[in-house]
Amino acid sequence: MDLPTILDTASVVVFALTGALVASRAQLDIVGFAFVACLTAVGGGTIRDLLLDRHPVFWVAEPAYILWATAAAVGIFVTAHLLESRMKWVIWLDSFALAVAVPAGVAAALETQQHPVVVVLMGMATGSLGGLMRDVVCNEVPLVLKQGELYISCAMAGAIAGLITLQFGLPINTALLVCAATTWALRAGSITFGWHIPVYKSRPPRQ
Amino acid sequence: MDLPTILDTASVVVFALTGALVASRAQLDIVGFAFVACLTAVGGGTIRDLLLDRHPVFWVAEPAYILWATAAAVGIFVTAHLLESRMKWVIWLDSFALAVAVPAGVAAALETQQHPVVVVLMGMATGSLGGLMRDVVCNEVPLVLKQGELYISCAMAGAIAGLITLQFGLPINTALLVCAATTWALRAGSITFGWHIPVYKSRPPRQ
Amino acid sequence: MDLPTILDTASVVVFALTGALVASRAQLDIVGFAFVACLTAVGGGTIRDLLLDRHPVFWVAEPAYILWATAAAVGIFVTAHLLESRMKWVIWLDSFALAVAVPAGVAAALETQQHPVVVVLMGMATGSLGGLMRDVVCNEVPLVLKQGELYISCAMAGAIAGLITLQFGLPINTALLVCAATTWALRAGSITFGWHIPVYKSRPPRQ
Repeated sequence: MDLPTILDTASVVVFALTGALVASRAQLDIVGFAFVACLTAVGGGTIRDLLLDRHPVFWVAEPAYILWATAAAVGIFVTAHLLESRMKWVIWLDSFALAVAVPAGVAAALETQQHPVVVVLMGMATGSLGGLMRDVVCNEVPLVLKQGELYISCAMAGAIAGLITLQFGLPINTALLVCAATTWALRAGSITFGWHIPVYKSRPPRQ
Repeated sequence: MDLPTILDTASVVVFALTGALVASRAQLDIVGFAFVACLTAVGGGTIRDLLLDRHPVFWVAEPAYILWATAAAVGIFVTAHLLESRMKWVIWLDSFALAVAVPAGVAAALETQQHPVVVVLMGMATGSLGGLMRDVVCNEVPLVLKQGELYISCAMAGAIAGLITLQFGLPINTALLVCAATTWALRAGSITFGWHIPVYKSRPPRQ
Repeated sequence: MDLPTILDTASVVVFALTGALVASRAQLDIVGFAFVACLTAVGGGTIRDLLLDRHPVFWVAEPAYILWATAAAVGIFVTAHLLESRMKWVIWLDSFALAVAVPAGVAAALETQQHPVVVVLMGMATGSLGGLMRDVVCNEVPLVLKQGELYISCAMAGAIAGLITLQFGLPINTALLVCAATTWALRAGSITFGWHIPVYKSRPPRQ
């Protein structure tokens, strides 16, 4: 199994766990869990494949991804009541999913020889759109738009870090690992220490 | 006209009726009715065609589908005030649309020789995504995620029932009808008798 | 640079400005501004290209569009505090973006020799779906569904006006300009003078 496939599989499973956890917050039944889990798990990669005209779409070519996502949903259905704070789990699992999905998107774009701007965007899209669908469908505030947190910025920085690594002539697998590590480190730092870049404030504080 | 075309046409018209009824709840004008009706009517089948790389997309190949959906929207625009409970009509019409859209999705996936898991997913996607777009765009609680009701489960059971029928060596048209009947019977039972499978409850009732 | 490219570029930049303004209402950081700006800027045209199977998608072929959208987002990030009413700017800029995006969609559909119904729909989709994504993702009431205003109707009328112009044997560039002018005139009239067509009212006023 090559690294891009490992990254795709990991992102499917971990995003599926977050989808199932959000489904538990919406008190759905087990098929609802599986539906939201699959949507979250393959959403970003599907958009990436459609945009790059890569057919068959990765999970149409290899339906085992869907079975993995469904298994993850079943696992959460029977264990979610053991978790103390499901939202905390969603946030941390989502950070791992993001960190593997971004290099998966980058790998797919590199494979089809895209422009660097497109490579970065595919990393960002693969990393963020599955979670965005999960949150829009389940009516949660999208993590990607949460104020005062780095999210899509981590994806962008990770993808750029991967491209820079390639520029130094290092092998592609190294670049993908640098991408994953950068993405995760920034996201984890933002969750733990509140790292952020300035947000737009409509009105300056009055005196 | 072959059975898959009949199913596609029926699902377009009936989903369009539900879209127009939801537009009436949002008090849109007639072009808004047609817009939501068309989005609902062709949304699920469009996603199916894009995922399976079937081009031209069914309504690009045959724009009459759009005219049918628009006619349905006009019909609702002039008659919706006669209906006593529009939401009840949405729910029942939606059940019929689901019951014809699932086999339409199954038929398209069988035609392109997909893996059984993909066939079931295409049934589920074709059946549910148009209605999901309607509800997200018009800011209604998505029917597909309503608690304590079978919805996406009916689509899954219907698609699986169709595949099992094929395994018995019965003709594909029989399988599509079994799929439609199973989907509708389960959905109608859930609406009428409250059939459901257990939902996830975050906390057991306290004593 | 031919007219369709000019229209595409103009709609990307102006839609990006509206996306960044909506991001400022959601108090996002600069990467969030760029993300919403890009989604709004290329959303409609991307759906159009996927539906018509035009590959590579326009901004994958020419990533400069993304850089333009990002530049627009940065421009808004540093100047939005100077604007008195950001919502008013969103509405007016959106009217210009709509007026250039509709003929851009029409041009793409004509180029691939589509049926007139599909041409009109591609104009409507290119014009409205980027803004719809912006509003759904940022949780604003979609402009396209605002009551008592012409929006999607302007797109439809503009696209039809363009097709009629072609019927008179006039050159395609003239038709695209007629399309843009018709779309914008109707939308501007609706914003300024409240032009609208009757909306559906569920209950007649009681006496």
